[in-house]
Amino acid sequence: MGMWIGRNRKARVTYGFDEIALVPGDVTVNPNEVNCDFSIGEHTFKVPILASAMDGVVDVKFAVAMGKMGGLAVLNLEGVQTRYENPASVLEQIAKADKDACTHLIQKMYVPPIREELIAKRIKEMKKAGIVVAVSSIPQKAEKYGAIAQKAGADIFVIQSTVSTVRHVSSEYKTLDLAKFCKTMKIPVMVGNTVTYGVSLELMEAGISGLLVGVGPGAACTTRGVLGLGVPQVTATVDCAAARDAYFKKSGRYVPIITDGGMNKGGDICKAFACGADAVMIGSAFARAQEAPGNGNHWGMATPHANLPRGTRIKVGVTGSLKQILFGPATLDDGSQNLVGAIVTCMGNVGAKTLKEFQETEIIIAPSIKTEGKLFQTVQGVGMGTR
Amino acid sequence: MGMWIGRNRKARVTYGFDEIALVPGDVTVNPNEVNCDFSIGEHTFKVPILASAMDGVVDVKFAVAMGKMGGLAVLNLEGVQTRYENPASVLEQIAKADKDACTHLIQKMYVPPIREELIAKRIKEMKKAGIVVAVSSIPQKAEKYGAIAQKAGADIFVIQSTVSTVRHVSSEYKTLDLAKFCKTMKIPVMVGNTVTYGVSLELMEAGISGLLVGVGPGAACTTRGVLGLGVPQVTATVDCAAARDAYFKKSGRYVPIITDGGMNKGGDICKAFACGADAVMIGSAFARAQEAPGNGNHWGMATPHANLPRGTRIKVGVTGSLKQILFGPATLDDGSQNLVGAIVTCMGNVGAKTLKEFQETEIIIAPSIKTEGKLFQTVQGVGMGTR
Amino acid sequence: MGMWIGRNRKARVTYGFDEIALVPGDVTVNPNEVNCDFSIGEHTFKVPILASAMDGVVDVKFAVAMGKMGGLAVLNLEGVQTRYENPASVLEQIAKADKDACTHLIQKMYVPPIREELIAKRIKEMKKAGIVVAVSSIPQKAEKYGAIAQKAGADIFVIQSTVSTVRHVSSEYKTLDLAKFCKTMKIPVMVGNTVTYGVSLELMEAGISGLLVGVGPGAACTTRGVLGLGVPQVTATVDCAAARDAYFKKSGRYVPIITDGGMNKGGDICKAFACGADAVMIGSAFARAQEAPGNGNHWGMATPHANLPRGTRIKVGVTGSLKQILFGPATLDDGSQNLVGAIVTCMGNVGAKTLKEFQETEIIIAPSIKTEGKLFQTVQGVGMGTR
Amino acid sequence: MGMWIGRNRKARVTYGFDEIALVPGDVTVNPNEVNCDFSIGEHTFKVPILASAMDGVVDVKFAVAMGKMGGLAVLNLEGVQTRYENPASVLEQIAKADKDACTHLIQKMYVPPIREELIAKRIKEMKKAGIVVAVSSIPQKAEKYGAIAQKAGADIFVIQSTVSTVRHVSSEYKTLDLAKFCKTMKIPVMVGNTVTYGVSLELMEAGISGLLVGVGPGAACTTRGVLGLGVPQVTATVDCAAARDAYFKKSGRYVPIITDGGMNKGGDICKAFACGADAVMIGSAFARAQEAPGNGNHWGMATPHANLPRGTRIKVGVTGSLKQILFGPATLDDGSQNLVGAIVTCMGNVGAKTLKEFQETEIIIAPSIKTEGKLFQTVQGVGMGTR
Repeated sequence: MGMWIGRNRKARVTYGFDEIALVPGDVTVNPNEVNCDFSIGEHTFKVPILASAMDGVVDVKFAVAMGKMGGLAVLNLEGVQTRYENPASVLEQIAKADKDACTHLIQKMYVPPIREELIAKRIKEMKKAGIVVAVSSIPQKAEKYGAIAQKAGADIFVIQSTVSTVRHVSSEYKTLDLAKFCKTMKIPVMVGNTVTYGVSLELMEAGISGLLVGVGPGAACTTRGVLGLGVPQVTATVDCAAARDAYFKKSGRYVPIITDGGMNKGGDICKAFACGADAVMIGSAFARAQEAPGNGNHWGMATPHANLPRGTRIKVGVTGSLKQILFGPATLDDGSQNLVGAIVTCMGNVGAKTLKEFQETEIIIAPSIKTEGKLFQTVQGVGMGTR
Repeated sequence: MGMWIGRNRKARVTYGFDEIALVPGDVTVNPNEVNCDFSIGEHTFKVPILASAMDGVVDVKFAVAMGKMGGLAVLNLEGVQTRYENPASVLEQIAKADKDACTHLIQKMYVPPIREELIAKRIKEMKKAGIVVAVSSIPQKAEKYGAIAQKAGADIFVIQSTVSTVRHVSSEYKTLDLAKFCKTMKIPVMVGNTVTYGVSLELMEAGISGLLVGVGPGAACTTRGVLGLGVPQVTATVDCAAARDAYFKKSGRYVPIITDGGMNKGGDICKAFACGADAVMIGSAFARAQEAPGNGNHWGMATPHANLPRGTRIKVGVTGSLKQILFGPATLDDGSQNLVGAIVTCMGNVGAKTLKEFQETEIIIAPSIKTEGKLFQTVQGVGMGTR
Repeated sequence: MGMWIGRNRKARVTYGFDEIALVPGDVTVNPNEVNCDFSIGEHTFKVPILASAMDGVVDVKFAVAMGKMGGLAVLNLEGVQTRYENPASVLEQIAKADKDACTHLIQKMYVPPIREELIAKRIKEMKKAGIVVAVSSIPQKAEKYGAIAQKAGADIFVIQSTVSTVRHVSSEYKTLDLAKFCKTMKIPVMVGNTVTYGVSLELMEAGISGLLVGVGPGAACTTRGVLGLGVPQVTATVDCAAARDAYFKKSGRYVPIITDGGMNKGGDICKAFACGADAVMIGSAFARAQEAPGNGNHWGMATPHANLPRGTRIKVGVTGSLKQILFGPATLDDGSQNLVGAIVTCMGNVGAKTLKEFQETEIIIAPSIKTEGKLFQTVQGVGMGTR
Repeated sequence: MGMWIGRNRKARVTYGFDEIALVPGDVTVNPNEVNCDFSIGEHTFKVPILASAMDGVVDVKFAVAMGKMGGLAVLNLEGVQTRYENPASVLEQIAKADKDACTHLIQKMYVPPIREELIAKRIKEMKKAGIVVAVSSIPQKAEKYGAIAQKAGADIFVIQSTVSTVRHVSSEYKTLDLAKFCKTMKIPVMVGNTVTYGVSLELMEAGISGLLVGVGPGAACTTRGVLGLGVPQVTATVDCAAARDAYFKKSGRYVPIITDGGMNKGGDICKAFACGADAVMIGSAFARAQEAPGNGNHWGMATPHANLPRGTRIKVGVTGSLKQILFGPATLDDGSQNLVGAIVTCMGNVGAKTLKEFQETEIIIAPSIKTEGKLFQTVQGVGMGTR
């Protein structure tokens, strides 16, 4: 297992979504009759898609809409929503900023301190709407914000950083004792991101209730470009799913894994499930919703980094309602709308009645190189046969 | 057989047309002396190319022209031809529609119900011209439309959906009993699409007389993009050809397989035969014919899907007569005209006197990456040597 | 040896120039002291580069210039030079023609019959200048034109077609008996093109004195696109070189192989030698010479094909004198000038004193994918160290 | 080890930076607490990055700035700095020249002879500023310029050519006796470039104190394009690091290796260390500094080659101060600024406390093909977790 990359060194071959495809089943199922429920802790969701804790995607209004439709949106506790009483004007400035000035502006907008009373306020606003409330912070702030969030009524707490491990070394600051934190918290704790079997096992053993999978997922990803770091999502998801299954066998506790990032097309979401994901987390597809706070703009939490900003604001445009994006009817034909429709249609075609069965789909390695200058354009699919 | 894509999971490596090439033979044959006949049921065709059941490609006029020239066109029983007494104005509207409004317009144009008397009428119009008549429907309508079509004089009935299996599960609607259907019908039944050995065998055992091969054939295909589903055509064709040969050995009945989709260049058609195809089915190459009803436009049967449209109208242009496309003389030098000429020239170069011998051609895996910025452009071929 | 491309079928993996690179030697040699002589029959050339028998590249004037500088140009006996007393105006019309009208114009220009007295006249014009004269025809005309050419004083006769074999099957016309032809001719006979070990051996056993290697060399090649046919040049050259060595071992007669086509950059020429070539044949690099008859235009002998034209006229531009292209000084920095300089510099860097040693260079498989959007452009090479 | 590329020939598979990625560690470290010191001879540098001996990058002023910040810049003794008393106007002319005229102008600008008194003068100017002074020449001039440089106070002498070996064959000129030269010199001698285990060992045995690794590193590199020569940097670095370790085991002397060229993104620098590099040498990232003499322009030492120029002047633009490029704060988000920040952040994420530990990072082979037309743009990284 592994190829020689030089005289005395081997490297594993890994795969991303572009390199694989799913094989149709021996049996097909009516897509209207499949079940794609996803559970975390005691909460069950009809839609196995989470919205990323990004400031252009999730605010209170968006989270409520997502919750009402059966999904889960995570609110970032360290963005503009908790730095500004009224973040709308800040978001508008970012949307209107010149492309070149944008990163610098975002850096500036994230300088004002986080106000703890706003953390509680945002959670209560969401709670009042009757949805499952999920919020996130970085590891260094988890103890402090976790306590505030739980007290304010949050249902799920997410700790997220580029690379999360149980064993972080620092003499400069106090590192988080994750096992102790999970024990202290009465609500489920989700942690990410990771990509390896070993760290997944350690995080599960520390007591987490959900795992976010994905570091530098794509070749074009800023983490991969700036730091050289990353594992393609097919291999990362398969490996972390293996850790989940091993941990379940040992402990009897099932910790769902959520593939986060690297999904560029609707088909990539389907592939993530086939690789073993229990759910997926998505950002920019939702940044295109009318309900999203970014006004058709999208940026990551590494963009405002003062010293080493990674990724900039991207104009994704507003293309439809959240309902259209999740359930259709699609007015676009590019696979960016009706994501749940894509999931159940694919499940029907591979013959999976549940997400658990979907995880068993046969995967093939398929060439990803696009041909230029096609003479005979493929317009495949007398598609109504199985739908 | 297969590569590790993660800790506990292997995936087969599959191939598409771009990844392979054909090796010239030890013997070469005068192309004028090769035979490329193709048979389905009792019908034999001089041209082993079928025209896809797509509304921009096949209407009565086109099917008659194709039949007279030795090929076979399939008329779609669920498109505009059976919804409108006079579909010309509908087709014109689609051709003239704005790019952005187009998918929505097509969705609207497919709302009016299918009229059964038009099914019979179209078939009789074709029959009157003395050609072999083939028509298609989705599985759910096969029993109903199959009976009408047979009665009206159709010679071949095609059941087509994105993914076809013998075992389809649904409690919402009654599923087709394919074995019973094939027994009931007096004319040959072709079914598709599939891509696997197992399903091919089951379909043949159910009594079909022809098999369409191809699901999500190319990386750019909408089925692959939207659903993640698909098998590259080289592997799909080789696998289904193996099922054909195994079934023939067991039963003595030869069920031809037709590679459908993913052929972007003339060379891809040749490669499909070398992989084991008995014929190929092609859409957009024919959408460019003067005889095609789409006025130089092309769209698939998944485009009008109300909830999850896939693929849009593509302007392919009108580039010549059907005769030129099939037999030349080519006025274009890009391989989109004189398709039969390409087949027989390739057969001559690999030394195949029949399609059966063509299926034995040596295949190599050849790099598909295009070099940019060439200094020395290749203008290969003092080509009149073997022609 | 070979990969599974489907259930019951294997295919060899083959390589082109883009996929490989050459490894610097343990020893380096002063490039001024290496020898790159090439011999065919009794003729030895200082420059191991042949100019292709293409009408935009070789006329009498060009062949004389090439010969005087130590190389060999092949004049096409079936192009404009033997159809027109004064082909200059025809060449000018082709050069000036509109892109779209061009293929059709070329087809028309090749309709006038070949005039046998012009064959003799062109050969005598070249002969008078004191150079080694090489001319070419297709197999069907070899007996007739070979006799005329030999009588007129030609030194080398070339038989060229897309795919050449010893065993060509036709009842429509009489096929060439190559062994007999080689015996009849008093001058060396070169034949091409081929790409396989088996056919190379058969051709050598038939008595040829030189072999042209290359069918559908690149993924963008028209033979590959239109017919699906081709073998990448690295594998083709290695295989045919193996046949040459096996034949030499058995017979004691050394038949040089000339890699023809698929060389897009100066480095590709070097790679061809490392794969085992004794010489290379090049077209469009020479079409850019001031001495070339095409006025900066280039087209192949398959372009005028009446029924299945492949490849069109390409504007390559006039970039310098033949002397600059062969020996520099280069005013361009893209590797299209000073081709002999590139060969000897590479020989110096891999430590080869002769072409025979150059054929032993270590080859690696190296990634060919270009990175887009480079931050740190590589401007490699404090190059005067080994030069 | 190796793949068949033809009938009787195998080739090793090699890798470049685009093909690999680094795997996050089981442990992570606070990036502020890692150490990335690099030593050559008795000199230790806080910044393990060298600036290339290129005329658009390094002059006295730049070298002093680089030295003061903890890095090392190499001054080219054969460029404009030693040919002109005041090179500023020459550099300005090159910067302002027309793209097409540029290579020819550079050729002309390098014609005036090198003035030995300027060699001494430049070294003394740098020495006076209190930095470690490194200068370079080609092998043929090493004896002469080495003596002058050492006498003038240089601390490190670099011998650089496209391909360097201990055994260079020439009867035309006297070749350098490297072992004798290293013994004669009192200051450390660095030599490059090489890419193979064998030559690395021979060079170390000859007494060098540092090795530059890199010949034709990338597919787009001019050495690869013009000469076909080159080894991708992952394999080259792993192989040369193996030679370093083998030589250290045998001799007890540690000769650092410096990966030079082929690093297109910040992540590539991190990957070079993971492959075993002790330091990296970089050109164009520094050509973009306000302190660089090229005014935002960059060209290599093979550009002025009179007969076979390779590579031309590239406009890279001035994007920030050297301080920003090395340490940030980055105002660009593309990874071209804060290179040291990228190194220590990556070290933190893989859990490496020293460069020696960084060299042990797990490497994977990861797909490098970019997807076009992404629907869901990845804006990865809630990056402040581990930073």
